Order: sequence, then C-alpha cells, then structure tokens
Amino acid sequence: MLELIVGIDIGGTSTKFGLVDTAGKVRIHSSIATDNPDINVYIKDLAKAIRNAADSLDEPVEFIGVGVGAPNGNYKKGTIEDAPNLPWSGTVPLSDLLNKEFGLPVQLTNDANAAAMGEMMFGGARGMDDFIVITLGTGLGSGFVANGQLIQGHDGHAGELGHIAYKIGGGRYCKCGKKGCLETYVSATGLKRTVYKLLADHHMDSELKRYSFDDLNTKMVADAAKNGDVVAQEAFEYTGKVLGAKLADAVGHTSPEAIFIMGGLAKAGDLIFKPTIKHFEKNLLHIYQGKIKVLPSELNSTHTPIIGAASLILKDIMTKKGLVI
Amino acid sequence: MLELIVGIDIGGTSTKFGLVDTAGKVRIHSSIATDNPDINVYIKDLAKAIRNAADSLDEPVEFIGVGVGAPNGNYKKGTIEDAPNLPWSGTVPLSDLLNKEFGLPVQLTNDANAAAMGEMMFGGARGMDDFIVITLGTGLGSGFVANGQLIQGHDGHAGELGHIAYKIGGGRYCKCGKKGCLETYVSATGLKRTVYKLLADHHMDSELKRYSFDDLNTKMVADAAKNGDVVAQEAFEYTGKVLGAKLADAVGHTSPEAIFIMGGLAKAGDLIFKPTIKHFEKNLLHIYQGKIKVLPSELNSTHTPIIGAASLILKDIMTKKGLVI
Repeated sequence: MLELIVGIDIGGTSTKFGLVDTAGKVRIHSSIATDNPDINVYIKDLAKAIRNAADSLDEPVEFIGVGVGAPNGNYKKGTIEDAPNLPWSGTVPLSDLLNKEFGLPVQLTNDANAAAMGEMMFGGARGMDDFIVITLGTGLGSGFVANGQLIQGHDGHAGELGHIAYKIGGGRYCKCGKKGCLETYVSATGLKRTVYKLLADHHMDSELKRYSFDDLNTKMVADAAKNGDVVAQEAFEYTGKVLGAKLADAVGHTSPEAIFIMGGLAKAGDLIFKPTIKHFEKNLLHIYQGKIKVLPSELNSTHTPIIGAASLILKDIMTKKGLVI
Repeated sequence: MLELIVGIDIGGTSTKFGLVDTAGKVRIHSSIATDNPDINVYIKDLAKAIRNAADSLDEPVEFIGVGVGAPNGNYKKGTIEDAPNLPWSGTVPLSDLLNKEFGLPVQLTNDANAAAMGEMMFGGARGMDDFIVITLGTGLGSGFVANGQLIQGHDGHAGELGHIAYKIGGGRYCKCGKKGCLETYVSATGLKRTVYKLLADHHMDSELKRYSFDDLNTKMVADAAKNGDVVAQEAFEYTGKVLGAKLADAVGHTSPEAIFIMGGLAKAGDLIFKPTIKHFEKNLLHIYQGKIKVLPSELNSTHTPIIGAASLILKDIMTKKGLVI
C-alpha cells in the first residue's frame, strides 16, 4: 500500500492539489476551480477530484494525512479567516470539514508558512533549525522557523512581514488600511509602484513608459533593466534597499542562519538579490555581519505550494517516528 | 537535602548571585565585584562566595545546576562574547569554566533572555507559549518566547531589538556604530537624548534645563512630567510613540500573546505605557488590534535577574520531569 499525503494549495482562482509520497515526490496532481460559494459543495468537489486522482494511480493507495496552504490560513485554529480573494466570507473551519470528509489528520497554515515547511523538508533549509522564508508575489509573505519549529504565534498569525512598516505612519497606502507597509514597496505590485514613482519624479527615457500599470509585470521590468533601462535598474535597486533594511531588522528578532526568498520577484536573480544583500549587510548589527545567507529558495517548481502543504503532515509523522529532519 | 539552583547575574560592576529553590524563592543572596581581569581567579572567588553562602544556610544543600545571565551571553555556545562593560576581552567560555568548578549543568544567556525565562516561570507570562520581554535600562534588551521556547537564534544572538532601526540609515548615532537604532530613542539614555533634543529645538520653560546630561535620570524626567513640565511629558510621549511603532513591527514577526516591559523606564508607569499602547495599537495590522497585552513585568524585585538565570535550569528540570510550566 502506497502511503500518500494530500497536499492542497488554495488560491483565489484555482485549488491545486497533489498526492505526495513520504520522500516529497508528487505522484499525481490536478486542480479544481475555487469558485463555489458553498463551502460544503466545494469540499465535496475537492474530495471527489482527490479520490479520482488516487484511483488513476497504478498501485493501491492509503492517505495518511491532509496538508493545506491557504491565504489567511490559521494553523492553530485550522480555519481560513476573512480571506479577501476567496469566495467564502468570515471564518471557514476548513480543517474540520476536511477531517470530516477524509477521517484523517488535517493541518492548515498560510501559504508562506507552508513554503517554509517545504523549504525545511525538501529545500535549502534542510538541517536548519532557524531560518526565514520570504515569498514575493502580489504581496509579501513570510514564514519563520526557530528551534526547528514553525513560529505560528499565539493566534496563528505570526510572520506577517508584508505589513510591518517601512515608513512608520506614512508612505504608500496599503490595502490593509495602513500606510507604509513593506509589501507596498517589496512585491510584484510594489515594484510596479516604484517604477511609476520614478517615472513621475524623473524625466529620463524609459521603455517602461509604454506600459499601463495593469500590463506591467516583473519580467518586463527585469528585461528592461538587463537592457540598460535606468528606471528599471533603479526600481530594483530601491526594492532591494527596502527589503535589505527590513530583513536586517528581522534578523534582530530571530537571528536566523539563512533567509530564503521565493516567488516571481526572486526570479529576477541578481537584479533583486544584489541590492538586497548590499543593504542587508549595511543595516546589520556587527555581530551578524557576513554570517547570514540570503539565498533563492531551492523550491522553485510549480509544485512547491503543494509540497509545502504536505510537509506540514510529513514533519509530524517523521517527528513521531523519531526521525531527524 | 535542599535542592538549590545557583542563579548568577553578571553586571559591569558587581556579580550578584542567589541560591534559588525549585519554587523560585531566593534562599540566600550575595555578590562579588566583577573586577578581576583574570577570569580563572574570578571564577574561584565566585565559587568560594557561593559555597560560603550555602554553608550559612540552616540545612544541608545540594546544588542541581547553575544558571547565568550576562551581557552578550551566548546560550548556544555558553560564552560571553566581546562584552564592552566586562573586564574580559574576546570570548570567555564561562559555562565550561563553571561546569569544571561545580561539576553541574550550566546554562548561560544574556540578561534579557534570562528575564524572559523568569517571566515565564514566575511572572506574568506563566502559562504563555508566545510572548516578548523588553528590558529598558541604559540600553534596550529583548527576549522572545515562541512555542513555549526561548528563541536563541542560529548563533545565540536572537532578540537584539535594541539595534533594529527606528530610522533606517539615519537618526541618532548608536554606540554599536550604526545610526537610528531603537535603543538610542527607547531606553533611559534615549529618554535623556530626547529631552535634550526637545530643549535644543524649543524655547519652552522646563525644570529639566537645570540638569546636566550626566545628572539627568528617568526619575527626574518622570517627576517633572507629573509636575506638568511640557518638555518632560513630550519626551515620554515621543519615547512611547517610537516604542509602540516598533513593538507593532515585532508582533508582525512572532504574533505574541503579550509583551512585558521591565526596567527603570517601565517604572514610569502610565507616562510610558499610555503613549506606547496608543501608538502600538495605531500601528498594528487589523488582525492583531485589541488582542495583544502590553504589560509591566510582574518581576520587579531586585532579585529578578538571579531568578531569571536560575529559571534556565529550572525549566529544563521541569520539562524532563514532564511537568507543565
């Protein structure tokens, strides 16, 4: 009997899932739309798709647990809370619903925490007890591991670095209602806002002038920077300056061995890593300087969120078996 | 046989120690000067004083461990590293030396981490798994607990909030070599600097004009504020504004249940707590608002550092016995 974990990654448009073996390999994967406003129907549809996927495998399968990464996922409560991009309002008891459906242990957390678990189990953080994962997408997410454990926080909401202040009480408006939040500067959207700010403030030529805000994306800015476009280069430099400074602050909190960066903006490579590391080192207290690695995530497959979600269950199983991870 | 833990608090001027029972009560305490540049002689003197104290008790005593709080104390390595106010330069293997002397388990950490352990064992954080302790003295120290464990960090240097940036790349000079560090604003010294800044910028009457920087202390500023001195009141307001904003950032990292503040500045009571809490709430992400307690430490005896140091050993013992703390 092949033991498999169900890894589920709930996104605003689609819910991806995979059946992951205990070595972290995705044996089969598929998805359903995240569009049914009736959560009970959604769960039934998802369970059906998962069972169909299992049936299509060559060997008999036993599910041993369900791991879920979801926006606003609360690990301690097993709930999704007020996720603006999902069709269910209020608090959704997702773990309970999945447990009722499958009769198996369910663990749920937010996307960035799931990513951190994946990095620890199968990525660059293998063997590390203290590290941080930063996810750069539309917003900025983060997951903290200390003493070999994910920091969930008292209410399950640890690691909200997207909404710490780059500019206290001022700066750019954030959709959370505050101003100056880190993700308004450091994220795919933050990069676009910086490009627009530079185009507003300066009169340099730039190929980025031809794109609307809606059309502009990280890849366009990266390509322009590689072509020598000064605005694009300066946008990355500024983004790295902000990220580096705030990562130095994060080190003052938990003193990690390494910081892993993943997501679309991380794919810009040196364009984002060079200024980030330069300003990170500049802002670090001397006792940390030159000691903390800032690295691209080693999990850059499209399956990363699924593997991360499955890792929540895997870590538990391996800990119970007394296996070092 | 009375089981006692040796709790040691190493300060720049004197080394205080106490023999602490497993209920956290200090049975006897004393001190020696921290002035012998020969670390081996210092250890012998300290051990002698400790044994003399034990001999003076009415009942026979068995030491079960040694806990030490020291500036720049590194828990993971058991060393004191480049402590500017201690007579020993470089790295001092203090745990090894004490272990050799007593043949007992030794645990060492910095002052703020020891304070956090004390708060967890015997203070307001009893029963809490996730909290932060801030110590406000000449500088600003901090200790983080998550998942019921002290966060030490990869290299034992977690919780250096004194040197995170209030003003990135600018602001007040710090003795660490950087600028804009939190403790240049929020500490006994930071408060004095704020008073001097206000006196430099404004022309209001203030009773604080009569004190030199060297003579001025927190109590004088607090007394003046209570007498209606506008400069003194504004100095506390500004200090709370800075502290509140940066504590809101800290919450975004570890999502604690409570934040405990101790040390001289905390004794100013409402003068510091009111503006701190006001600006803390204002800067918090909505999901945290109104949920996180900012409280004075419940450990305000002069023995707090000794009890905190002993708690390092006590926690281990109780964990091994399977006792919930």
